[in-house]
Amino acid sequence: MSYTYIIEVVGTIAFAVSGAVSAINRRYDLLGVLMMAFVTAIGGGTLRDVLIGNTPVTWLRDMNTPAIILATGFATILFRRHIKNFQNTLLIFDALGLGFFTIIGIQKGLAIQLHPAIGVALGTITGCFGGVLRDVLLNTPPALFHKEVYATACIVGGSFYCIALRFLPAQMAESLSIVLILTIRILAVKLHWKLPSIGPDITEDGA
Amino acid sequence: MSYTYIIEVVGTIAFAVSGAVSAINRRYDLLGVLMMAFVTAIGGGTLRDVLIGNTPVTWLRDMNTPAIILATGFATILFRRHIKNFQNTLLIFDALGLGFFTIIGIQKGLAIQLHPAIGVALGTITGCFGGVLRDVLLNTPPALFHKEVYATACIVGGSFYCIALRFLPAQMAESLSIVLILTIRILAVKLHWKLPSIGPDITEDGA
Amino acid sequence: MSYTYIIEVVGTIAFAVSGAVSAINRRYDLLGVLMMAFVTAIGGGTLRDVLIGNTPVTWLRDMNTPAIILATGFATILFRRHIKNFQNTLLIFDALGLGFFTIIGIQKGLAIQLHPAIGVALGTITGCFGGVLRDVLLNTPPALFHKEVYATACIVGGSFYCIALRFLPAQMAESLSIVLILTIRILAVKLHWKLPSIGPDITEDGA
Repeated sequence: MSYTYIIEVVGTIAFAVSGAVSAINRRYDLLGVLMMAFVTAIGGGTLRDVLIGNTPVTWLRDMNTPAIILATGFATILFRRHIKNFQNTLLIFDALGLGFFTIIGIQKGLAIQLHPAIGVALGTITGCFGGVLRDVLLNTPPALFHKEVYATACIVGGSFYCIALRFLPAQMAESLSIVLILTIRILAVKLHWKLPSIGPDITEDGA
Repeated sequence: MSYTYIIEVVGTIAFAVSGAVSAINRRYDLLGVLMMAFVTAIGGGTLRDVLIGNTPVTWLRDMNTPAIILATGFATILFRRHIKNFQNTLLIFDALGLGFFTIIGIQKGLAIQLHPAIGVALGTITGCFGGVLRDVLLNTPPALFHKEVYATACIVGGSFYCIALRFLPAQMAESLSIVLILTIRILAVKLHWKLPSIGPDITEDGA
Repeated sequence: MSYTYIIEVVGTIAFAVSGAVSAINRRYDLLGVLMMAFVTAIGGGTLRDVLIGNTPVTWLRDMNTPAIILATGFATILFRRHIKNFQNTLLIFDALGLGFFTIIGIQKGLAIQLHPAIGVALGTITGCFGGVLRDVLLNTPPALFHKEVYATACIVGGSFYCIALRFLPAQMAESLSIVLILTIRILAVKLHWKLPSIGPDITEDGA
């Protein structure tokens, strides 16, 4: 069991918890909560696979991921009143997953000779669009587009990865990039970083 | 014209009516109603085809289904004030379609050597995600996740199908599973079955 | 640089502006605005590619389109207070793009031997579903389904194209169809054409 596999599991768990918790807050039913855990955890990778034509998409060929997500969904339901006590753990798990899924997405893009910039886009989709699907299915404007520094971490870390690949051994470039994404994401939450919101009436003279 | 083809047509009609009626209730325009009939009827199968890489997706290669959906859409518009009188007929049609589409989805999964549990997931997607797409396009939280026993019927009936395949002739397993899904779905509506809703504040001690 | 390429660029710019402006009106952040420009501009073509199995989808293999969209997104943000002065230009750009993307979509369908009616559906998806995705990600009911004569222009112009192909040289059929879609769309906006809205209680006797 390699360290990347452990990171993948940890990230999958964090994404599944995020989907399950948001469904619980919406009072979705048992199956709704499990499905939201599923969509949130596999959504980004599935969209990536569909866009590049890597079908049947990954989770259809891998029983482990669905099993982990289901177990996580049930655990989230059981311990839902104690989730708050694990906020920091979940943030770290989620940030680790974000980094890992971003780099995996870039690697899949580079493997089929796509331009590195397109690879970074694919990586960002892999890392972030599970959450977008989650929000669409919650009938709420996607947090990714207005709330937090999230995709920014993928873009910065992913661009670093593509450049680092030219100078460093592949595994070192990978590890450093995941750490970079993790760090940006955690600092963004802890220091309340936000991207400038672009409003129609925000003008230099306050009009 | 086999009996499975008749069931498919009947199911397609029921799903198209469901999409058209919901669009009418939202006061969408003529084309909006027809498009919603379309998306609801072919959404689940299309998503399944995209996930397994069965492209061009089925409805692109089959003029009958689009024609049936369009005719159903127009009929629903014409008779929209009388739809209520057909509630029971529509429920049976819809439940029949649900059973049929679920089993078709599983068969397509098994045909490409996916694990039976993944097949059940594919079948459930085939049966249910047209309705999810419908709700997303209506800008409302998907009923599938919180309102009714719907996917549950697919999962129970689909699991039964995968087990029955080992002991019964294929066609008998198929028919029994469709009847099982139909029965669960109709009982769920008539007896107001609901899955437990998972709320953040539902605690044993009422806190 | 052929004239079709210029039309494609012009259409991409118009679609990207439409996505960016709607995100600005929602106060999405910097990255949210750029992403909405992206999804709106490439959404229809991406859905078409996924449905017919043309993967990796077009924008993954073409650096120009993403670059044009990003530049348009930034320009829209910079000049957001002056966008109103370009309403008519943008309408013409958008209508030109609508015509072009519709015909491209039909051509891709005909190239893989799909029925012309299915080709028209594919063309309409190519022209219109970027806007549907935009509205879903804005958490608002898609304008396509209830607000304006938009898809109608694609269906009329696309059907004309398929018929004209039998009697006219391909390039002339193409140009005429784009002009037809452009004209219908602009007249629809300027003359406030609307499709009849289908409400549940709209009856001949006013009941």
